[in-house]
Amino acid sequence: MSEEVKPESMSLYSVSAAATPEQEAVCIFGTGDLGRSLGQRLLQSGYRLVYGSRRPHSCGPIPPGAQVMSHEIAARSASLVFVCVHREHYDFLETLAPQLKGKVLVDVSNNLKKNMYPEANAEFLQRLIPGAHVVKAFNTLSAWALQNGPSDANRQVYLCGNSPEAKQAVAEIATKLGFSVQDRGSLSAARELEDFPLQLFPEWRLPMRLTIGLTAFFFFYLLIRDVIFAYVDQGKDNSFRIMVSLANEVFPIVSLILLSLCYLPGVIAAFLQLYRGTKYKRFPDWLDRWMLCRKQLGLIALALASLHVLYTLIIPIRYYVRFILAANTISQIKENKTSVFDTTMGWRTDSYYSMGILGFGLYLLLGIASLPSVSNALSWREFSFIQSKLGYLTLFFCTFHTYLYGWDKFLFISYYKWYTPPGYMLCLVVPSVVLLLKLLLLLPCVDKSLTRIRQGWERTDPEDDSKKSLLAKDCQKL
Amino acid sequence: MSEEVKPESMSLYSVSAAATPEQEAVCIFGTGDLGRSLGQRLLQSGYRLVYGSRRPHSCGPIPPGAQVMSHEIAARSASLVFVCVHREHYDFLETLAPQLKGKVLVDVSNNLKKNMYPEANAEFLQRLIPGAHVVKAFNTLSAWALQNGPSDANRQVYLCGNSPEAKQAVAEIATKLGFSVQDRGSLSAARELEDFPLQLFPEWRLPMRLTIGLTAFFFFYLLIRDVIFAYVDQGKDNSFRIMVSLANEVFPIVSLILLSLCYLPGVIAAFLQLYRGTKYKRFPDWLDRWMLCRKQLGLIALALASLHVLYTLIIPIRYYVRFILAANTISQIKENKTSVFDTTMGWRTDSYYSMGILGFGLYLLLGIASLPSVSNALSWREFSFIQSKLGYLTLFFCTFHTYLYGWDKFLFISYYKWYTPPGYMLCLVVPSVVLLLKLLLLLPCVDKSLTRIRQGWERTDPEDDSKKSLLAKDCQKL
Amino acid sequence: MSEEVKPESMSLYSVSAAATPEQEAVCIFGTGDLGRSLGQRLLQSGYRLVYGSRRPHSCGPIPPGAQVMSHEIAARSASLVFVCVHREHYDFLETLAPQLKGKVLVDVSNNLKKNMYPEANAEFLQRLIPGAHVVKAFNTLSAWALQNGPSDANRQVYLCGNSPEAKQAVAEIATKLGFSVQDRGSLSAARELEDFPLQLFPEWRLPMRLTIGLTAFFFFYLLIRDVIFAYVDQGKDNSFRIMVSLANEVFPIVSLILLSLCYLPGVIAAFLQLYRGTKYKRFPDWLDRWMLCRKQLGLIALALASLHVLYTLIIPIRYYVRFILAANTISQIKENKTSVFDTTMGWRTDSYYSMGILGFGLYLLLGIASLPSVSNALSWREFSFIQSKLGYLTLFFCTFHTYLYGWDKFLFISYYKWYTPPGYMLCLVVPSVVLLLKLLLLLPCVDKSLTRIRQGWERTDPEDDSKKSLLAKDCQKL
Repeated sequence: MSEEVKPESMSLYSVSAAATPEQEAVCIFGTGDLGRSLGQRLLQSGYRLVYGSRRPHSCGPIPPGAQVMSHEIAARSASLVFVCVHREHYDFLETLAPQLKGKVLVDVSNNLKKNMYPEANAEFLQRLIPGAHVVKAFNTLSAWALQNGPSDANRQVYLCGNSPEAKQAVAEIATKLGFSVQDRGSLSAARELEDFPLQLFPEWRLPMRLTIGLTAFFFFYLLIRDVIFAYVDQGKDNSFRIMVSLANEVFPIVSLILLSLCYLPGVIAAFLQLYRGTKYKRFPDWLDRWMLCRKQLGLIALALASLHVLYTLIIPIRYYVRFILAANTISQIKENKTSVFDTTMGWRTDSYYSMGILGFGLYLLLGIASLPSVSNALSWREFSFIQSKLGYLTLFFCTFHTYLYGWDKFLFISYYKWYTPPGYMLCLVVPSVVLLLKLLLLLPCVDKSLTRIRQGWERTDPEDDSKKSLLAKDCQKL
Repeated sequence: MSEEVKPESMSLYSVSAAATPEQEAVCIFGTGDLGRSLGQRLLQSGYRLVYGSRRPHSCGPIPPGAQVMSHEIAARSASLVFVCVHREHYDFLETLAPQLKGKVLVDVSNNLKKNMYPEANAEFLQRLIPGAHVVKAFNTLSAWALQNGPSDANRQVYLCGNSPEAKQAVAEIATKLGFSVQDRGSLSAARELEDFPLQLFPEWRLPMRLTIGLTAFFFFYLLIRDVIFAYVDQGKDNSFRIMVSLANEVFPIVSLILLSLCYLPGVIAAFLQLYRGTKYKRFPDWLDRWMLCRKQLGLIALALASLHVLYTLIIPIRYYVRFILAANTISQIKENKTSVFDTTMGWRTDSYYSMGILGFGLYLLLGIASLPSVSNALSWREFSFIQSKLGYLTLFFCTFHTYLYGWDKFLFISYYKWYTPPGYMLCLVVPSVVLLLKLLLLLPCVDKSLTRIRQGWERTDPEDDSKKSLLAKDCQKL
Repeated sequence: MSEEVKPESMSLYSVSAAATPEQEAVCIFGTGDLGRSLGQRLLQSGYRLVYGSRRPHSCGPIPPGAQVMSHEIAARSASLVFVCVHREHYDFLETLAPQLKGKVLVDVSNNLKKNMYPEANAEFLQRLIPGAHVVKAFNTLSAWALQNGPSDANRQVYLCGNSPEAKQAVAEIATKLGFSVQDRGSLSAARELEDFPLQLFPEWRLPMRLTIGLTAFFFFYLLIRDVIFAYVDQGKDNSFRIMVSLANEVFPIVSLILLSLCYLPGVIAAFLQLYRGTKYKRFPDWLDRWMLCRKQLGLIALALASLHVLYTLIIPIRYYVRFILAANTISQIKENKTSVFDTTMGWRTDSYYSMGILGFGLYLLLGIASLPSVSNALSWREFSFIQSKLGYLTLFFCTFHTYLYGWDKFLFISYYKWYTPPGYMLCLVVPSVVLLLKLLLLLPCVDKSLTRIRQGWERTDPEDDSKKSLLAKDCQKL
């Protein structure tokens, strides 16, 4: 049995008798899922609740304790009305304009996809009933949260509207329901709020696609070099290497490329500003979009670097590795040859590990500093110190780590299976270029010009056709 | 020597002379620890301070710069009064009702335990002096923070009260003292604020008890199997295994069980909704409580999984492991047998590690997404994508990791010491059941019914006794 | 070609014609970089914009769509004026006092260094034009964020001012530009806001210096013991040990010392309070400063501990270690001696690792709990439970881990190379002292006295010269 009483006819339950005098009345238009969920919560928080319905006598179940009336009568009983109706049915509200005059109308609607309509639902509602104070609110919460109160991603009620008093009234209800409120300004922000619940990591799409593309490419590239080559060339079944060895090549390669792609657009932007001699010209669109997803690129790179660390650390407990090490020891004994400790090798491998660890440590620091609560606590001078200075240091450590890994392998023809270079060589291209360009930008004369441009200075003379002359001037001063 | 001047009699220090005209006056009732701490801070922030005391001439030390007067006179000197008096002594305030009329009374009190009194202290105060505007505030801060200003967990002042103007006045003082303010609505929220400082991880208790119970059970279970059995059966002293080997069995087992217990209630709830044909009926209490502690269960599971990772990674530097490996190599040589590389073994162990690493990586992602600042920045569509889709993927990876660990061990009688199954088998029961049930729910016909129910649809016909018919209908449509 | 139109003369572009009637007008004084960046953003957000300039006919480029006028005329056209002028040029504003009367003046200025002027820029501006409502705002944002909207560390606009209405007006503009607003109280907070963008981790300086000092000391100390001694004494080139082995000694040593330095000031403070018999006397300055950087000390210690973990976990994949292990196995075979498994050794090393892992796990927990968003969600009872109870447990685990590492090494003369004790011995001094003192404080009689003092009780009798008698009394009661 349902715990709710389903009223066959209009509820005659005398709410006013039970209600204490302080109980505030609110009205909900619409008895669908949203209206019902929100109503349950409002009743629990001690509000007196009146539903407005087209067919108040046959409107389906409503939460016990609420009344159902026609829209006209319901609207009169409260100064605040939640509109829990689909946008397609807003038209009928126009006829209620006289009853809704001066009332606060809360638009909680969402659309099924973006840009379905030329204007935001809340703006449409305001246009239909100019005499009411429309407030967009609660639409970013799930129906579950509306019914049961705040939970993890459903803690904040964003609201916007043109009337501060109306927003205040809605904010008070939201606070009473347990949510915290954030004002997003005038009703023109409504579209943004209506798009919010529809979004699924929009700013992560481009970086994710890039990651998947790079990962797939390097996976097949290395599959050919490591597994298929061995099978064709020597008839050896190396396929088990896919699970760990191959993964541990692909992840660090893609990670390093993504990390360097975080810093490449900044370098390009700097050269563009130097070339143009002004900071006030907009960057090309592709550069703008690229710069906006640097954070996401960096975080994916960090995730892949973490996987690389874990894959590296389990190396010594792998069956394959233990087998090889034991086999080596046994063959050393059988052949009775004594291997001598090679100090250069000791230096090289230890430096390689040390660079990797320090790079990863800094990497983690960058990741922690991009947590919203941490970055909000930093001044922008501090934030840019971390993300720029420490960021380039991280890139340097990781690139150096890879160079140490490669060492002199590039000299030996045996590494170029089927004339393809090893993966680590391919992944060194972008970071090396970025670091070189950054070094160029750090030259005192270039740096000085750039600083001046970023402080608002502009090369005004249109005949001054070359950035060379400008640089020359600065460099001469040194 | 104390740096404070302890006034033998009522302070004659002429504050008004030193005070600049803008200095606002505030009053504190009570010269105990709290009143004194708060007073010090108010004086530092530039307020003029008047204490109200029963015995203004012998009230003990007060901060230098403040005045002490009788309650009546003190109340008249300021429009805002902090009540730093224990609730048991509130009665005397009733006699001051005329002087306190229209004033803002700030209730900063806390109780020693929850539910000591039928109503919140602030509500009691408001009832005693109906003419004053009572605001509950500052009670969630430690006395240390009141004296020294904001620090880590003492940054936010929560306040509630029925008068917006009174709250505004208190909010301004709090801001001036360096705190940030959060309005929690009307005075009916006072009890919640009064309970806040008393709580010690209430929502973590049930999950912690469960964890301790499971950990203890599996510890003793494995102690018997791994250590005591070896001692009884072969007289071997394996006790050193307790510190690492045993820990590294108990932690992952409990972790996997806890992770699956995060997802079990959701699955049960779905089947309950399908069975009942409505989403508007409340779940049984035990299920509600269970669902509310899923986040905590998941975070404890993550902590244990992290310990499992660390315990696994130190395996190769353990003395025991190095000893065994060397002994194996030596015996191979002595017996002059050549072991052959087993590709299946390579695939199996590498897959096992790879699944574990990927599962742990996703696990970390779930943990990061549940940080308050991260989850607040997500839309609920994004949040549920992570916690549900990626969550089940994590559970799948970790369960598969465990199956790969077990492999064909279940076939060999030698693993069932004293007829008990190995620990990993026991821990596979719950996750396997959860994954199976989830698979059932993903069948298109079941999924469709559930979606309709969650969108507010209800099975209305009371004669429609079976969910079967409903499902059948949907399934036929496919 | 620049996309902006650079007006040769005063812009005659008729803004009012294009502007919709709702467009609000704002005024900016100053056409420098800041004024121009802010102006661009204001125009994008739909404001009508008028620049005030000394030379409206030759003021350099302004964003297209804005007008340039003389200060007098510009001031009259809007009720809100952004002052984007360097403080040195504020003087001329005094002559505009009549035009600026009743207007909202937004001071967005920053200085090049702290304490350049006796009063905050905004306070100076308010003094120059007493009839205007000065609001300090936007100064904590970078020019980049002013031009392009909020980004990571540029999300919040802090504002302060004496007029709530003026602050409200500025808050509305900031919200419309996409920022979130935090009110910091009256204009007296302006200095704090002006100092904010200049700061570069001020609270991290002392801990960082200490860390660098300790790291350098132990690096050279261990370099002498591990590398130079071996070279001088045995002519062995151990230099490759610098990269990993030495780092993995220095990091844990410094980490443990820093961790214990987090807890030492609290212990000292407790003994000081016991000795003085009051909590109301201020601590000496050095102790206050020390206590304020405990969080930073702890986080640096955690970072070093994480490095220690990574350096430890890569041990088995090091070339050096594999070489040694293989060499040992080979020599065992050649000498045909059988080594026997040493259970004590098994217990000791496994306990050592287990303590380290548990200590590090708790350490991570402390770190996570000090993330702003996590610590803000905790009550101070919960926060102090974690940071104090779990903190001391962490210190205990890590100290015990180090004792287990040392074991009986202190008995053997060979470890004291050139009469110097090993590094781990030196680093055990401070933590051992802290733990001992903490144990003393936990004795019931001491604990009771301390609790009474912290609840506000004071030893009032000046003849009561000894804390001993107080303790004796409490202890007798037991």
